[in-house]
Amino acid sequence: MIQLLSAGLRVNNNVFEILDQQLLPSQETWIAVQSPSHMVEIIKALKVRGAPMIGICAAIALAQYAEKTSSIVEIEHAAHELQNARPTAVNLAYCIGKMLATPRQDWQKGALWEAAVKLFHEDITLCESIAKHGIPLLKNGAQLLTICNTGRIATAGIGTALGIAYKAHELGMNIHVNVVETRPLLQGGRLTIWELKKQNVPCTLLIDNAAAALMQKGVVDAVFVGADRIACNGDSANKIGTYSLAVLAAYHRIPFYVVAPYTTVDPLCESGMHIEIEQRSFSEVHGVQGSFGNVTWAESSVQVFNPAFDVTPAELITGIVLDCGYFNQKAIKHGEHLKIEEK
Amino acid sequence: MIQLLSAGLRVNNNVFEILDQQLLPSQETWIAVQSPSHMVEIIKALKVRGAPMIGICAAIALAQYAEKTSSIVEIEHAAHELQNARPTAVNLAYCIGKMLATPRQDWQKGALWEAAVKLFHEDITLCESIAKHGIPLLKNGAQLLTICNTGRIATAGIGTALGIAYKAHELGMNIHVNVVETRPLLQGGRLTIWELKKQNVPCTLLIDNAAAALMQKGVVDAVFVGADRIACNGDSANKIGTYSLAVLAAYHRIPFYVVAPYTTVDPLCESGMHIEIEQRSFSEVHGVQGSFGNVTWAESSVQVFNPAFDVTPAELITGIVLDCGYFNQKAIKHGEHLKIEEK
Repeated sequence: MIQLLSAGLRVNNNVFEILDQQLLPSQETWIAVQSPSHMVEIIKALKVRGAPMIGICAAIALAQYAEKTSSIVEIEHAAHELQNARPTAVNLAYCIGKMLATPRQDWQKGALWEAAVKLFHEDITLCESIAKHGIPLLKNGAQLLTICNTGRIATAGIGTALGIAYKAHELGMNIHVNVVETRPLLQGGRLTIWELKKQNVPCTLLIDNAAAALMQKGVVDAVFVGADRIACNGDSANKIGTYSLAVLAAYHRIPFYVVAPYTTVDPLCESGMHIEIEQRSFSEVHGVQGSFGNVTWAESSVQVFNPAFDVTPAELITGIVLDCGYFNQKAIKHGEHLKIEEK
Repeated sequence: MIQLLSAGLRVNNNVFEILDQQLLPSQETWIAVQSPSHMVEIIKALKVRGAPMIGICAAIALAQYAEKTSSIVEIEHAAHELQNARPTAVNLAYCIGKMLATPRQDWQKGALWEAAVKLFHEDITLCESIAKHGIPLLKNGAQLLTICNTGRIATAGIGTALGIAYKAHELGMNIHVNVVETRPLLQGGRLTIWELKKQNVPCTLLIDNAAAALMQKGVVDAVFVGADRIACNGDSANKIGTYSLAVLAAYHRIPFYVVAPYTTVDPLCESGMHIEIEQRSFSEVHGVQGSFGNVTWAESSVQVFNPAFDVTPAELITGIVLDCGYFNQKAIKHGEHLKIEEK
């Protein structure tokens, strides 16, 4: 009997449930995943999000499906459908790749479940290792700044960028996390604040365009962000607004760290130029939608520029924290973040 | 009989009405101003906003009041109350100062009305002069970026920063205005887009944290912003998020212009350090409130950093466009923007 439990997903035998992140923080509702195409819907609707989390959920959905079908071709078809649910995060491709690399003849004999469970546990370990390498970058009393949600519901473990803050807090360090709300989908204001409050980590919320003023006041000691894809040269794609924070941090001489598991590094992607950026719907910017309500303030006819991600060039990144170590600018230039022993 | 009419205010004899900017764009509702303290309420609730507009409205409210009271002391008291309605914009102090400088014995014989009407017409002329000095900064086909609302409802005329865009469009230039939504109160998404659509100026809406990505794409030719107070050394206070755009523009080598009437220059304010920044309520960041609805997504217990304005240091400002001319960095350094003949 398979049992998995994290802040954002749970598996109890063949029942696979996901915490609906669109309904947070006002409602904690779990969705029972029915099929790979249901999972794709859930991913596209951002009911589950966070690059590592999406990969693991897709893997579990595939394992679950293998028990329901006798067709190898259908499993492969479902795998491709899952892999294409979102284009930017590389972890999704990584997880599905791991699943498909298992012996095909064992797919319906538990091999896919075994692979998915391994990915789940691997992610927990990755988060712990990331935190271990991130902690030395913090001083006691540090004021951090972060964007979006890179915590417990974005991974199977304690998180990536936010995981470092959780670990510091757990170790008794006195830290404070400043969170930009992260328009348009408000993952900072809705999810990260909810998580930090739950873990009793001191935090402050601000609008995205107040980050510069907070830095100008001298309040911010370091910026920690997640990543959806890290190119060979260190260029990193992450939530829209991350690049903005990187430019602001450089101007204010504040260290800017990208934090991710090694699975986010894409050895096939030479530079940021090659990262596909998903454009999302106008309605996200015409107003806000969520379990909290649905309001529109802008003229519905107005054209919108709404990329889901932006790319931060390596020269603005002080260092990349991976599970396998910390890589400063020089190390990134030498491609040391690419020389990773696979676990 | 006194008659004044602009996009955001109208006076018909002693009836003084203001377009409720909190209800825009979904409702166009006019509020009849009853008294100076009613005007203060209206200003504090941001039903009327825009540094020049606030000053003119306060002046008219004072003139209106002079007809209703026989007490000079009460008029003076009302003047001080109006002047303190918001701390950051200097225009308010300027306009009230002009009113109080009229001969006291004539206050109830029409001198205050005369002064208020003069301020109204002066503002229209100031906007036209600003536009005249701003136009040479634009090339045909220019893609502008702006924040907040600096247009027809922020002034008695065509606007300040946005006025330049209106004038360019009127002159047949092919321009496009990119507007950041301007959290927390969404003046960009609600008001500026509404105005631009009304005037048929091509425009695009984006979230505040997508401005950097738009600049990175090479789309933005120039940033034009308003100001609430310009210090002697050129440091400028404006809507929160302006400083962020200034840093981003400098990094991308995009010209960054501050646009205002001369009344925004505060000769008593040495530098940005001396500009008082208003902190506004947490609820503005916990969600959004307006005629479009009222929703809250963040934990109501979370602490918020919510300054209404930020200060852009002069070294990030390519130039300041005033009604009396264009002042580049060198001119600002020499204090030429301070040597203004009063009209």
